Parts: sequence; structure tokens; C-alpha cells
Amino acid sequence: MDTIKIGIIGAGRIGRVHAENIVRFVPEMEIKTVADPYMGEEAAELLRRLGVPNIAGDADAILTDPEIRAVVVCSPTDLHAEYAIRSARAGKDVFVEKPVDYRIERVKEVIDAAKKAGVKLQVGFNRRFDHNHRAVYEAVQAGKVGRVNLVKISSRDPEPPSIGYVRVSGGIFYDMMIHDFDMARFLAGSEVAEVFAYGGVLVDPAIGEAGDVDTAVVTLKFDNGAMGVIDNSRRAVYGYDQRVEVFGSEGAVMDVNDTPDNAVFYGADGTVSGTCYKVMWDRYTGAFAAEQRAFADAVINNTEPQVTGEDGLRSILIAAAAAKSLREGRPVGMSEVG
Amino acid sequence: MDTIKIGIIGAGRIGRVHAENIVRFVPEMEIKTVADPYMGEEAAELLRRLGVPNIAGDADAILTDPEIRAVVVCSPTDLHAEYAIRSARAGKDVFVEKPVDYRIERVKEVIDAAKKAGVKLQVGFNRRFDHNHRAVYEAVQAGKVGRVNLVKISSRDPEPPSIGYVRVSGGIFYDMMIHDFDMARFLAGSEVAEVFAYGGVLVDPAIGEAGDVDTAVVTLKFDNGAMGVIDNSRRAVYGYDQRVEVFGSEGAVMDVNDTPDNAVFYGADGTVSGTCYKVMWDRYTGAFAAEQRAFADAVINNTEPQVTGEDGLRSILIAAAAAKSLREGRPVGMSEVG
Amino acid sequence: MDTIKIGIIGAGRIGRVHAENIVRFVPEMEIKTVADPYMGEEAAELLRRLGVPNIAGDADAILTDPEIRAVVVCSPTDLHAEYAIRSARAGKDVFVEKPVDYRIERVKEVIDAAKKAGVKLQVGFNRRFDHNHRAVYEAVQAGKVGRVNLVKISSRDPEPPSIGYVRVSGGIFYDMMIHDFDMARFLAGSEVAEVFAYGGVLVDPAIGEAGDVDTAVVTLKFDNGAMGVIDNSRRAVYGYDQRVEVFGSEGAVMDVNDTPDNAVFYGADGTVSGTCYKVMWDRYTGAFAAEQRAFADAVINNTEPQVTGEDGLRSILIAAAAAKSLREGRPVGMSEVG
Amino acid sequence: MDTIKIGIIGAGRIGRVHAENIVRFVPEMEIKTVADPYMGEEAAELLRRLGVPNIAGDADAILTDPEIRAVVVCSPTDLHAEYAIRSARAGKDVFVEKPVDYRIERVKEVIDAAKKAGVKLQVGFNRRFDHNHRAVYEAVQAGKVGRVNLVKISSRDPEPPSIGYVRVSGGIFYDMMIHDFDMARFLAGSEVAEVFAYGGVLVDPAIGEAGDVDTAVVTLKFDNGAMGVIDNSRRAVYGYDQRVEVFGSEGAVMDVNDTPDNAVFYGADGTVSGTCYKVMWDRYTGAFAAEQRAFADAVINNTEPQVTGEDGLRSILIAAAAAKSLREGRPVGMSEVG
Repeated sequence: MDTIKIGIIGAGRIGRVHAENIVRFVPEMEIKTVADPYMGEEAAELLRRLGVPNIAGDADAILTDPEIRAVVVCSPTDLHAEYAIRSARAGKDVFVEKPVDYRIERVKEVIDAAKKAGVKLQVGFNRRFDHNHRAVYEAVQAGKVGRVNLVKISSRDPEPPSIGYVRVSGGIFYDMMIHDFDMARFLAGSEVAEVFAYGGVLVDPAIGEAGDVDTAVVTLKFDNGAMGVIDNSRRAVYGYDQRVEVFGSEGAVMDVNDTPDNAVFYGADGTVSGTCYKVMWDRYTGAFAAEQRAFADAVINNTEPQVTGEDGLRSILIAAAAAKSLREGRPVGMSEVG
Repeated sequence: MDTIKIGIIGAGRIGRVHAENIVRFVPEMEIKTVADPYMGEEAAELLRRLGVPNIAGDADAILTDPEIRAVVVCSPTDLHAEYAIRSARAGKDVFVEKPVDYRIERVKEVIDAAKKAGVKLQVGFNRRFDHNHRAVYEAVQAGKVGRVNLVKISSRDPEPPSIGYVRVSGGIFYDMMIHDFDMARFLAGSEVAEVFAYGGVLVDPAIGEAGDVDTAVVTLKFDNGAMGVIDNSRRAVYGYDQRVEVFGSEGAVMDVNDTPDNAVFYGADGTVSGTCYKVMWDRYTGAFAAEQRAFADAVINNTEPQVTGEDGLRSILIAAAAAKSLREGRPVGMSEVG
Repeated sequence: MDTIKIGIIGAGRIGRVHAENIVRFVPEMEIKTVADPYMGEEAAELLRRLGVPNIAGDADAILTDPEIRAVVVCSPTDLHAEYAIRSARAGKDVFVEKPVDYRIERVKEVIDAAKKAGVKLQVGFNRRFDHNHRAVYEAVQAGKVGRVNLVKISSRDPEPPSIGYVRVSGGIFYDMMIHDFDMARFLAGSEVAEVFAYGGVLVDPAIGEAGDVDTAVVTLKFDNGAMGVIDNSRRAVYGYDQRVEVFGSEGAVMDVNDTPDNAVFYGADGTVSGTCYKVMWDRYTGAFAAEQRAFADAVINNTEPQVTGEDGLRSILIAAAAAKSLREGRPVGMSEVG
Repeated sequence: MDTIKIGIIGAGRIGRVHAENIVRFVPEMEIKTVADPYMGEEAAELLRRLGVPNIAGDADAILTDPEIRAVVVCSPTDLHAEYAIRSARAGKDVFVEKPVDYRIERVKEVIDAAKKAGVKLQVGFNRRFDHNHRAVYEAVQAGKVGRVNLVKISSRDPEPPSIGYVRVSGGIFYDMMIHDFDMARFLAGSEVAEVFAYGGVLVDPAIGEAGDVDTAVVTLKFDNGAMGVIDNSRRAVYGYDQRVEVFGSEGAVMDVNDTPDNAVFYGADGTVSGTCYKVMWDRYTGAFAAEQRAFADAVINNTEPQVTGEDGLRSILIAAAAAKSLREGRPVGMSEVG
């Protein structure tokens, strides 16, 4: 088996999740260095336990290391583009967390940099690798539902992020529904042509004061005539609720949420089964591992990544259209944000 | 037990379904007369078997019979209003099939006629009485989901109606989604403020040629800030697919489709269970019976019907707004169609 | 459509259930007379409401009426055989509730009487007609599970019967598991060869004092080598729990319990759906109707009933073997009770 | 975090599964040496990849290494006892795969050796650690089902083992149902008092010729009066089918099988979801990891292992009773095999 040495930029929550999954499940990748200027003791301890040999404060420890062939960018969002571009220019294949950036121009710069450098660029839409959503995708690809008429996606988080995060994230369309925009394109097999958004502040007034909505319903029209609908809520008391459904001329395929166990209790007052996962890393453990395996595969076998920079750009464009639609109270065509 | 004598105008499919259910399940109502100018031998035979004593060609046999206290109007749609008004003026309580009419003025005339005559007026939104949808409604009413944030409704039929029907029915919003507009109001506990519709011809080009769409996604904004989404398709190869979901601050409640049986086969190639119902009368048997029991209850105990003329009017207004939204490619406020 | 006039002997709970179902769902049968020496006012009122023309105290009103072609015997259990025999001798087709009798000889006399008189004899194993169990049976008959290796049946009641009933019913094997013995034969497609029973008093000590057990597990060996297992409990706090499973060389087919509705609530503390039915007439409404339709069919079309006197006898023999096994603490071959 | 160095004896399938899971999921244990006299290149390659520093032919490399504190015994079954005893005598805590041995005396010797040496002894009943079975167990322990009346276990494998294995394994009760005997005790919270077994050759005649059965139903009577039933089949075409159910005075709790994904396809011919797992290592991945974490926990924190030598002995005794019951065609009390 071919193996490669990689570096991870950023040792925050998602960086550590990737580190742990790569060590456990991606034997083809060996983490040589993790760099983070603000690395805490807890992170350092975890990385040592995982056997990561180098811990650095500066990303240059990775970017200038000729042994390191690929970089996983897990920095704060506003540095995603910078590190992706620098990694590409250093000739390293790049995995960059989503969103690449919420400025469209900046995303294009990342794509260009990768293209010029001739390196791989994979964007972190982990949900494409979830076993359930993937099974839905594969059923659609296998033609089971025939022509796709409708894609429905529910995506609700257990708790809103901090108000501080809401203020800088770009808002619900950029930091949350972005996953669903990507999923919608992935499942529909067609590009979005037009978007219409409803949104409201139903969960927490502070989110409204921060200039965002916390609940949104977005309908999509695809180039091929199919339609889509996505609903998001910042708070579902019962945990991560992320379901997809594709309806077509030959049937429908849909998934439900995984639960920590499937024991069912039949009692005098009702039949009770477990709630959904309440921690994202539990909900998508397998997906995070699978997306890194896919990245390793693209790097080692020199194949197109399963989620490209173009995919990252498209989802940002849809987010921009949705935000504009909500602001202006009308459907917005993709050409308006292109 | 108090019992009342009733008459049924119209012995088409829905008239016969009501007759059969009333005889079987509504002992408080005794069908004295069924009138239909085009009554076929099959219908007459069924009615005889059900013990209906009088079969008439002319609705006057019902409208002028002082013994008959209530009328169930199952005529062709374009005569609903006329028979409802004549029944009301004759001092009889009225159950009228949906849609009351697709002309808003006409619906108001029916409501006025009933009000003036001081008779009950119940509209045939049978789905409110479905055991599953009703259980969702009751959970919402009981406060289980807390504040309602989102209502989602899927409604797909096994087969499109005839093109002839499409041409005169008023279109998908009036003859099909009308049920879902009513269900959305019923579940949300709030009136619709604004509507946005996407639609397309994805099932059968002939439907498009007849001036209608066969697939539609409509998003709703309610007065209380909640949002809703309804999807309709004229053809789901797997049968009647009608599911509702209400999501709120304290949880979500949703139902799935009933199936003829719940046996499950585990075989080498997969786990297979039964398809949905493919005949509406099988899917909603219990609901049709329950709505007639509710009508009997309102008549006998002099209580407000569970589905009023106002409910009939509101759903027509939403259909009008949806149709306008689709035509004009923009969200339409309810005040525009009021 | 051919129709026949019938009489019902016994207007207790099950007699009234049959009367109601026949009026509602079996148009081929017309109830002319219901006879019960202890008919209460409530029963009489129900029968009048159902349009039954004659209410009698003495079964002779049925047995001597040449217009009546078939008799439904719903008397107390100890009179089942007597009325079945008298009906047969009067030349009338017979539907008799289960158990025919718990004395083997007496059951044989009923079978003989029907044979001699050349009349139909159907025994009231209603569960064979339940939509779910029937779907399992049909999958097995269609060869889906291949060769049958194992039949598993759970059967638990919401509440024990009265101690008075327990004392005279013959015990759990005769009054409760009898249904499951019949179901086991029905599903296995083979006769029982040997029986082993475990039983205990885990629900109510008074049942033990009355000489019975309230919880039992019986394993079966079939002539064809397949095995079976049945568990019974007199009390399941969550309602009627009656599930069957057939496992074979090509797969398994099983059913679950119907519930009054299928709404599911997702809350912070778990996912909750409805409990099983707690009233037998609700659980088996459709089955009671279907068994009477099947009886009408056998009578009118002169076909073999779907549940014969022989079926009634076999289940009694298995009950006798199970009771003997429990008493003697060893497996009992069917030849020992033959 | 405290960590310990361990050795693994045996690098066959289960040894490699443990090695992989320990490296991935049990950071508290560091595998220093894996010993196997017949280690193949594939195994060695895997171990190298997992970072195991020493690969040995002889178990002495482990047993005489003072740095190694605990041993995981994954040798062929007939050497389990020997290596367990030698490990104990060397003062090392022992995890031994099930069955410890199928000779009762030999199992007792292992228990004695561990006791004398004052080391931990954990037996490899991995299913106790499965997330679903564990959730059932915890519901029972939490008192949700009240007093336990009945335990039901289904356990069916996708394919029979080789005939060579059947010939030496001790038979279905020792190599397969042993898991279920342990599970039954675990769930019932009571010891088995008596056993009755039915068995047959329904899957493959060669298994019968090798002196074993391939299908068995065993009923159990527990000391506390509860009953149990276990069914086993050597072949379920739909994959691993392992379900447990506990029924008691306050309700029932049961689980179903996990599937690789939960996508469901609704098509014209039925509703299809995925089959069960067909590879044991996939079905019980989490359980294998959890049992090693539990072992590490017992070793490091000096607590009683969750599955003791006594547990290993009890299940062997029940297997002996079941085998005797099948041979002699009668229930066998545990005192007869003690």
C-alpha cells in the first residue's frame, strides 16, 4: 500500500476530529505535522497520543516541508482561502474545510491557485460521505427513482452556535445550509437555476439582533426542471436531524437519522426509542473518516477529488442567491450572483 | 341515540363511498334518499343493498322532503355551490364536498346562504379525520412540539386524473393541493400570510398542454411567523404518499403512510415491506367515516362543524394565491387575493 | 350477488361483534334471528339498530326456521358443541367459536355430526384472517422463505381474564394458546409431532391458586422437522402483542403489531410512538369481518371452509399435549393424546 | 491517562480484529507483541501497519516479558485454556476468547489459576458490549420492564462454518449458542435452572453427518421463575440476525439488527431497505472495541471484569445441559451437569 505524509493546519475541534479519524481509519495517510499558533495543551496531548511526530506553531513547518505531500486546512474560516492557496502554491494537494470562503472571488482564487499548481483540491462537504445519504445518492445514480423530480432535505441542529460566530459566519445560508445546497446538487444531478428563501427568527431573538435568521425554508429550481426544498433550524431539541429524500418517476428513496442504539421499549404509556445524536462528531464519525479516505485515494491514485473546488464555489453561489432572495423577497436566478 | 334522516345528492364515486360509510359506521344517520340524474344500475344496486329506501333522479326529492334534515352534496364540482345553497335555503344542514367552488365569490355565497338560513355547513376535507394526521394534530394541540416553527406536507397521488378533468378542475392547486392548504392551516394553527409556488410538468406533457403543472412545491409564510412547505406530484408509482410533519420549539411530530399490512420479508437481496395504498378509498376509509360521524355530531348536538365554510374559503384563497404566484414568478400575499 | 339468511346463537360480546361485522361488511349474509336466553337490553338495542328483525330467547327459533341456512354459534364455550351438533342435524351450515370444546371426544362428535349432515363446519380462529398474519402466511405459501425451519409466535394479552373464567376455561393452553397452536400449524404447513411446555405463575398468584399458569413457553416439533416456539403471557401492560415470524431456507417473514395511529413524536427525552391496541375487538376488527366473509363464501359457493372442524380438533389435541407436558415435565408426543 | 503494554497470542482472524480495534479505539493499551507460530505475511503486514513493534513465533516472547501486563488470548480454541493458565501464572491479566474450553474441568482450572495468581480474567463474550443489546440490558437494569418474565433471543449466522470446524468445535451449543446462553443470563439477571433442547438438521446434511445439528430451539427455566427461549440457525440468507427481547411486568424491550445504511426505497413493487450485515466483524465492530476498552478499564483501575471466568463456566455448563437434553430428549436440570 502506498502511503503519504500529510500536514494539518489548525488543531481546533474539526482539526482534531480529522487527525483522530486519519490515524484510526486512513492508514494510507501519515500525519507528520500539525500546526496551530494557538494550540492548547489538550490538543497537543491528543496529538502526541495519536503518534503525530511534529507539533508546530507556524504553518510554514508544513508548507516548506518537502516530505509533506498534502495539507488538510482546518484553520478558522477566514483563513481557509489563504492556507489553501499557499498550500497549492507549495505544490501540495489540498483538502479545505467548508466553506472555502464566503466571498465568491476568494473561492475562485483558491480554485485558480490549485489549477495553476496542478494540485488536487477537495472541499470538506463531509455529508456526501455519510453512509445513509450516500446510499440515497447511489440509489439515485443507479436509476432506481428514474428521472428526479424533487429533492427534499431537512437539516436541523441541536443548538445554535454562539452569537459571536453568527456575527462573522456569513449567516445561516453560508455556515449551515451550505451543506444542504451541496447535498441538493449532489442528489439532483443538476445545477440550481433559481432560489427562493423564506426565513425567520423563531429560535432566539439574539440571532435576529445579530442580523441573521435561525429558521429558513429554501426552494430550488434546477436546470433540468426538478425542484428542491431545504429546511433549516438552529435548534431541534431532539438532536441532529438530517434527512434527505429524492422523489422521481420510478419511486422515492429517503433516509432517516441514525440513533445511538435501536432498542425499543414498549411500556404502558407508549413505545419509546432513542433520540438522534446530539453531537455532530458522533453523527458523522463515519463520514469524516470516509471523506479523508477519499482524499487519500485522489492524492495517491491521481484521480479527481469527489468534492471539487467547483463544488465549493457552487454552494457559495447558491448561498449568495438565497441570502439575496431573503433580503429582497423574491426568487433570485443564479445568473444574478454568478 | 338520536338519529336523523339525510339525503345524498350525487351517486358518483364519492357519493357511493359516503353512502357506504354512513350505513356501516354512522348509525345516527339514516339515508332516506339518494338523488342523481345519471344514476347507473351499479350505483342503484349498491344503494338497494345498503337499504336506501328512495332513489331519485332529481335533487328536489331531497330538497322538498321535510323529513330530511341534512344533505350531503356529492355532485360534480361545478354544482357544489348551487346544491349547497339550495339545501341551506331549504333549511337543511349541509355537508359539501371540496372544493366548494373555485370561484371565491361563489364560495362566499354558500357561506352566506348557510349563515342566513342558520344551518350547519361542513366542507369535505376528509384528511383532517385521518387517524394518523389527526394524531399529529392532537400532539400539536397538546403542546408537545411547543411553538410551531415549520409544517411540512408531502402529497402525491398514484396516477394523474384524466386530462378532461385537469382541464376543468381549476388545476393542481384547486383540485389536489387544496387538501394540503387546509391541512397546513389545520396543523399550523395560524393563517397563511404569503405564498410562493414553483411548478413544473414532469409527469405528463399532456398536463402541460392542458394548461396545468403536475409537480409543485409551495412554501408558505404564516401570520405567526411559522413557515410551511407542501410538495405535490400527480404520480407516485408506489401509491398514495401523504405525510405530514410539524416541527417546533419542543420537538417534531410526523406520520408515515399506512400500508395494507405490516409483514416484512428478509431475503438475500433486501428487506421488503408492502407498498402504500393505491386506491384513495382504501387509504382514507376511516377518515371518510369519521368526517360523516363528525357531521352527524354537529347536526344532532347543534355544535360548530369541525370543518367550516370559512375553512373551505380560506383554502380556495390560498390556491388562488399559489396559482398567481406560479403565473407571476413571485411571492403573493394573501391580501392580493382577498 | 347471492345472499343467505343466518341465525346467531348467543348475544354476548363475541356474538355482538359478529353481528355488527356481518351487517357492516358481509352483505351476502342477512341476520334473520339472534337467540340468547339471557339477552340484555343493551344487546337487544344494538341488534335493533343493526336491523336484525327477530330477537329470540330460545335457539329453536333459529334451528327450526327453514329459511335460515347457516348458524353462527357464539354461546358459552360449554354449549358450543351442543349447538353446533344441533345446527348440523338441522341441516344448517355451522360457524362455531373456538374452542369447539376442550373435551376431545366432544369435538369429534361435532365433526361427525357435520360430516353426516353434509354441512359446512368452520371454526372461529379469527387470527388466520388478520391482515398482517395473513400476509405472512401468503409469503410462506408463495415460497418466499423456502423450506420452513422455524415458526415463532408471541401472544400476550393486556389483562388476565377473571379468575372465575380461568377456573372453567380449561387453562391457558385451551383458552389462549389455542389460537397460537392453530397459527403454528397454519404457518408451518405441517402437523405438530411433539410438544414441550414450560409454564409459571408470574402475573397473578390467584391464577396459580386456580390451578393454571399465566406465562408459558411451548416448543413444538413438526412432522417435517421444522420447529416452533410460542410464548404467552396473560398480561402485557402495553396492550395486545401478537407477532408471528417464519424463518426458512430463503429468508424470514414476520409482522409487528398494528397501532391506532403511526404518528411519531421526537422530543428531547426520546422518540415516542403509540402503544398497541388494548381492546381485542379493535385489534382484530378486520379479521372478524374477514372470517365471516370467508364463511359466507364457503356456504354460498359450496367450498371447503378455510378453518375446518379438523383444525379445531388438532389445536385441542396440541393443547392437551402441552398441558400434559407441563404436568409431567417432559416432551409429549401427539400420539399420546390422539 | 494510564496506559499499559499488552501482548496478543494468536494472529488469526479474531486476533487481528482485536489488534486493529485496540490500536484504533483503546489508547490505554499499547500492543507490544503479537505471537503466532503460523503467522502469515498478510497478518504480519497488518501488524506492522498498525505499528506493533514485535512479532513473534512463540508465546514465550509475551509470557516472559516483564513489561507486558496483560495478554489477549486468541489462539485456537483447544489452546485457550493453556495460554490463559500460563498467562495467569506469569502474573498477567488475561482476556481469553470464548469458549474458554468445552471441557468443564478445564474451564475451572483456568478460573483457579487466575484466582491463585490474583490476576483479572475476562472472557470474550463480545455481544454483551454491542450497543443495541447493551441498551436492552440497561433498560432492564434500570427497572423499565419491571420483573423479568421472559427472555427471547434469535441468533442466526449467514453461513455454516466448515465441516472440519463443526467436527472439533463441540457442536452448535458450544461454538454458537454459547453466546446466547451468556446473553440469556446477562439479560435475565438470574441463573439457568433447567434446559430443554430441540434440534435438527435443516440446513446441510453434512452437518448431521458430522454429528451436529444446524438448527436448534432451546427453552430455559431460570432460578427466579422467568423463562427463556433461544433459536439458532447456521444459515440465514439475509445475514447476521441477532435480536434480543426481554418481557416483564412493566413492559418489553427489544432490539433489531443494524444495517449498513438506513436508506429506504419506495418503488412500484414494494418498499425495500438494506439487508443485515453479512460479515461478523462488521456487525460487531463497536462491540469488539468496547470489550477491549472494558478489559483495559478492569486492568488499569483494578476492577472486576464485566465478563468473568465464572460467566465463561456457566455458559459452558448450559451448553452441556442443552447437548444432554437434545441427546436424551428430556429437560435437563443444571445440577445434572454441575
